[in-house]
Amino acid sequence: MPNMDQDNNTPVQHRTDAFRPRNSWQTWLIGRPLQTADAPYETIGKLVGLAVFASDALSSTAYATQEILFILAAAGAGAFAYAFPISIVIVGLLAIVTLSYEQIIHAYPGGGGAYIVARDNLGELPAQVAGASLLTDYILTVAVSISSGVAQVTSAFPALYEYRVEIAVGLVLFMMLVNLRGVRESGAVFAIPSYFFLLVMSLTVLVGMFRYVMGSLGQVAGPPPIETLHTGQAISLFLILHAFSSGTTALTGVEAISNGITAFREPRSRNAGITLIWMSSILAVLFLGITFLSGQISAVPSEMETVISQLARTVFGGRNVIYLAIIAGTMVILVMAANTSYAGFPRLSALLGQDGFLPRQLAYRGSRLVYSRGIVALALVACVLIIVFQASVTGLIPLYAIGVFLSFTLSQAGMARRWWKTGRLATGQAIEERGSVLRYERGWPTKMIINGFGALCTTLVTLVFAVTKFRDGAWVVLILIPVLVVGFSAIHRHYRRLAGRLSLDQFAEPPRISRHRVILPISSVHQGTLAALRYAVALSDDVTAVHVCLEPGDAPKIQQKWEMWGKGVRLVILDSPYRLMIEPLLRYIEEIAAKRQPNEIITIVVPQFVPKRRWHNLLHAQTATWLRLALLFKPGIVVTDVPYQVE
Amino acid sequence: MPNMDQDNNTPVQHRTDAFRPRNSWQTWLIGRPLQTADAPYETIGKLVGLAVFASDALSSTAYATQEILFILAAAGAGAFAYAFPISIVIVGLLAIVTLSYEQIIHAYPGGGGAYIVARDNLGELPAQVAGASLLTDYILTVAVSISSGVAQVTSAFPALYEYRVEIAVGLVLFMMLVNLRGVRESGAVFAIPSYFFLLVMSLTVLVGMFRYVMGSLGQVAGPPPIETLHTGQAISLFLILHAFSSGTTALTGVEAISNGITAFREPRSRNAGITLIWMSSILAVLFLGITFLSGQISAVPSEMETVISQLARTVFGGRNVIYLAIIAGTMVILVMAANTSYAGFPRLSALLGQDGFLPRQLAYRGSRLVYSRGIVALALVACVLIIVFQASVTGLIPLYAIGVFLSFTLSQAGMARRWWKTGRLATGQAIEERGSVLRYERGWPTKMIINGFGALCTTLVTLVFAVTKFRDGAWVVLILIPVLVVGFSAIHRHYRRLAGRLSLDQFAEPPRISRHRVILPISSVHQGTLAALRYAVALSDDVTAVHVCLEPGDAPKIQQKWEMWGKGVRLVILDSPYRLMIEPLLRYIEEIAAKRQPNEIITIVVPQFVPKRRWHNLLHAQTATWLRLALLFKPGIVVTDVPYQVE
Repeated sequence: MPNMDQDNNTPVQHRTDAFRPRNSWQTWLIGRPLQTADAPYETIGKLVGLAVFASDALSSTAYATQEILFILAAAGAGAFAYAFPISIVIVGLLAIVTLSYEQIIHAYPGGGGAYIVARDNLGELPAQVAGASLLTDYILTVAVSISSGVAQVTSAFPALYEYRVEIAVGLVLFMMLVNLRGVRESGAVFAIPSYFFLLVMSLTVLVGMFRYVMGSLGQVAGPPPIETLHTGQAISLFLILHAFSSGTTALTGVEAISNGITAFREPRSRNAGITLIWMSSILAVLFLGITFLSGQISAVPSEMETVISQLARTVFGGRNVIYLAIIAGTMVILVMAANTSYAGFPRLSALLGQDGFLPRQLAYRGSRLVYSRGIVALALVACVLIIVFQASVTGLIPLYAIGVFLSFTLSQAGMARRWWKTGRLATGQAIEERGSVLRYERGWPTKMIINGFGALCTTLVTLVFAVTKFRDGAWVVLILIPVLVVGFSAIHRHYRRLAGRLSLDQFAEPPRISRHRVILPISSVHQGTLAALRYAVALSDDVTAVHVCLEPGDAPKIQQKWEMWGKGVRLVILDSPYRLMIEPLLRYIEEIAAKRQPNEIITIVVPQFVPKRRWHNLLHAQTATWLRLALLFKPGIVVTDVPYQVE
Repeated sequence: MPNMDQDNNTPVQHRTDAFRPRNSWQTWLIGRPLQTADAPYETIGKLVGLAVFASDALSSTAYATQEILFILAAAGAGAFAYAFPISIVIVGLLAIVTLSYEQIIHAYPGGGGAYIVARDNLGELPAQVAGASLLTDYILTVAVSISSGVAQVTSAFPALYEYRVEIAVGLVLFMMLVNLRGVRESGAVFAIPSYFFLLVMSLTVLVGMFRYVMGSLGQVAGPPPIETLHTGQAISLFLILHAFSSGTTALTGVEAISNGITAFREPRSRNAGITLIWMSSILAVLFLGITFLSGQISAVPSEMETVISQLARTVFGGRNVIYLAIIAGTMVILVMAANTSYAGFPRLSALLGQDGFLPRQLAYRGSRLVYSRGIVALALVACVLIIVFQASVTGLIPLYAIGVFLSFTLSQAGMARRWWKTGRLATGQAIEERGSVLRYERGWPTKMIINGFGALCTTLVTLVFAVTKFRDGAWVVLILIPVLVVGFSAIHRHYRRLAGRLSLDQFAEPPRISRHRVILPISSVHQGTLAALRYAVALSDDVTAVHVCLEPGDAPKIQQKWEMWGKGVRLVILDSPYRLMIEPLLRYIEEIAAKRQPNEIITIVVPQFVPKRRWHNLLHAQTATWLRLALLFKPGIVVTDVPYQVE
């Protein structure tokens, strides 16, 4: 603490007897307030980190296979054979992206999301595009994951199908509360169910493979009717690419760890990197296993029963206890995937807020040291999406993943550029550029090639995605991202301009105020008016009371009363035959303001009636409030409310 | 004008160079603003008065007969024979009520609605009941008349039936605009169609009677299916009284003239009284004629075709030009009936506002010298009713007329009491009581008996109405009127208490302010803060700047900047480890306020950021606004905004 002096006469007094918030309904709901100094302890280890951040990536196994089948179904059930080869290509892409992100995590131990990497290495516009893409996708992660989680439940209990929207919205709001409590607690809440999903899903794949090898796997009993987005197509390159695009949703969430490195316990980069490798390996195995087995049992795409449900009941011989455990585990991992966004979205919007691309308030931490505003905003927008799309995963999927791949591309292109720059340095040399340290590293060309190849692959995927899914809904995102970027720029311009206007760099102080004119509008002469008059007289010797006269007969009455109570202060009566109250007053004030000198200020002292109950405001004309609003935009006029409370 | 002195040095300056409003979209919509001095010319003669005020009463002939039949139909078509005898009793009641109101009009030349008569002669509670009854019925008059008007149109053009609600709402809003322009113009707009209705309806009755006498009248060709509210009842006294209650809606509107006497040209009472007699006579003839002929042609009640439509096409032999003229005339008179309420409702609510039973703003006249707020309120509530009841006359009728009869009873009981009091006076003696003059009049016992008998009759009708129509919807009104009365009392209590608190009768002035403490909350040191500092220093020598420190590292920075720019003013830094902004500030201010002397005031000078565009407000934390709201309720603390505009 710089200055602990408690003496009243020193120019600066620093008081550290801090205000401690009282308990309220919020304390009960989200926990006791935390001090800023408590912040560093709210970090997590690898095992909890996997539970918190990997769930997004792993949970996509619950719908990626199904969404590939939804597209292939356009060419009939025979086309389902293409699903497994497609998923092998996707796993190859996953390996490339994982390698790229592993490098990013080590280069950016302070948290290296696509936004930061693009900002540091590519510039402002790519950074804004990355930010817009990620924000969009965080929201869609919540909407898609929760919708898919609810779809698992309604596969097991079809009677709940008609309540799917209500259940989904309820879950989103529940996640909001958990996250408003803070990240460690939510990690603890979700670690057990996360590993439970890993257990049951691994079991499904293992038992399924065992039964396949033994030849006893069989087919889905009583499959639901096949559904598809488009019908009657032939197998074509476009269709295969389209199915591939849908399958790439399996990769969503791989970037989550790189955005949230600061949530990890030290050594951050190492812990985060190891967690990333674990995560991708598990993802690859599960995704391949589920897709392979789905093909073997002839699972079909349907909104009424998920592929996971069909697989589980075929492998374990019906809707038994193990089946229910798998459904429950899948549902819970999907809810946790939404939780990943609750960690990432507020962090990113706080970053954008600090950089002046979003409102600054997003960078303020709430009572539990989390970015509460971001958490609430995410929950509300996700609820709107769920309601609009009636919690349909297939409806939401075309909007999803395009943002993720755009941000993959930008971050990897940024990293490639970065390696190129470090290659120009001498061995052991380090320079600082835009807040991050560039250091020569051996093997930089390999690293550049890895990131560059990653960028190339994800660029291709982004293009394929945009083209094949344009009509299904991707156009919404392709419009939304530029709109967001324009918004960021407008906000940024405002903050920059304001900073210039407020800067003291070349500030010449105006002359000291030597004349102070006070204008006191009065509607009649009563105790409230006199309280304001008492105050006005204390401010200055130059006070003018102004009365707007609506009824010609009232002028003598007010004049008489003023002569008795007005302390000799000048009274101006303005006739208002058109029965307007504010406008004549404004004209009068403007006339006086026009004749003002630079060392002269004008204060309008407004008697402000404060009622005992809020509804009493409806019984008063609120002239004071309207006058304040009208004068707020006039430079150099100060408005003072002198409240008079009615007990 | 009491004081035309333009000299700045006299204590009171009266400026008559009034502010003249500019043209706007409102000018285009409702006409140029009128000066208060223009008011007396906005009055009307007998012929226009009949058009404006009688339409409510006359138009009820369009539905009264039909509503009698609706009830009688419960006992089968044979019961329709009772309709004519019932209507004769109703006309008898009309004669009694008319005589009573004729006396009221002469006793209250300033406008003697039930509210004023009850207030002057019975006291506050009966006055409030009368006020609530009348307000309710004005609204229902609009809803019922417009719905019936639309029903006439849809009888002629059944294809419009499904748009009835939209048409009705459109008409209500159109009436609103016409009335916002002012009463004389609306009189002129409606005089011609009003007399057109009289012409075509008289023609229908005359031709119908002629054909009846000649024996060539015949029956309705292809009548619509009979509809009824209740089925399968036997003829009973209850049913007859029920039908009678429905028929009494014919009397609604008789009171309109007594409420609006001030709208008449001088001699007001004479003009208004003659208009009342004309109106009741015409009403009696038309109502009897229509009911008699409806019985002769076997007209039946139906929402699909009105009785007027059935009568018109039977008398004139089909849906020809004369038929269409009758439908048009009836429709227009019903719209004008709604117009009666647009004259009465705003006048009454202004009266209630002046007396402090409704918000005072209702007594302020708008730019066209009409009580605009009352007009708009009436239109909006009527629209809600029309939408809720889907523009069904039969649905609305049970709510209607009970308020009118309640107010008839109260005004006549009040008049009876008044005559009794004048009877106590000596010949030629006059006393003033509650603002109205009581004067001995010869023949006061007769007048008392007339009003007393009127009160007795209308009391009976009110009871019959409440009992027979309770289940159909009258209960809504029987709950609503007490609720309104409770609301009036709560509002009245507020105004009375406020007047007491503001009264200067026993007011002892507090000591002159001798110490002025100024507190200046600052978030950082910039041009806006310095503008506020410049102002604060001009107010007082006793200024303290306060900074709430959210990030511990920021304190030295702000301290350093303050030492450079703070003009030696004391700065207090408050640590806020829970990242709260307002609360530590409030605690600090309260600490200082607690130690305050009576001659000491505290001013909080708040630098208020005024953005160029409204949406920019979203980019700022609005601390100033929250601080103002928190401090507004603390007595004796004044909040001053020093705005800093960003160009």
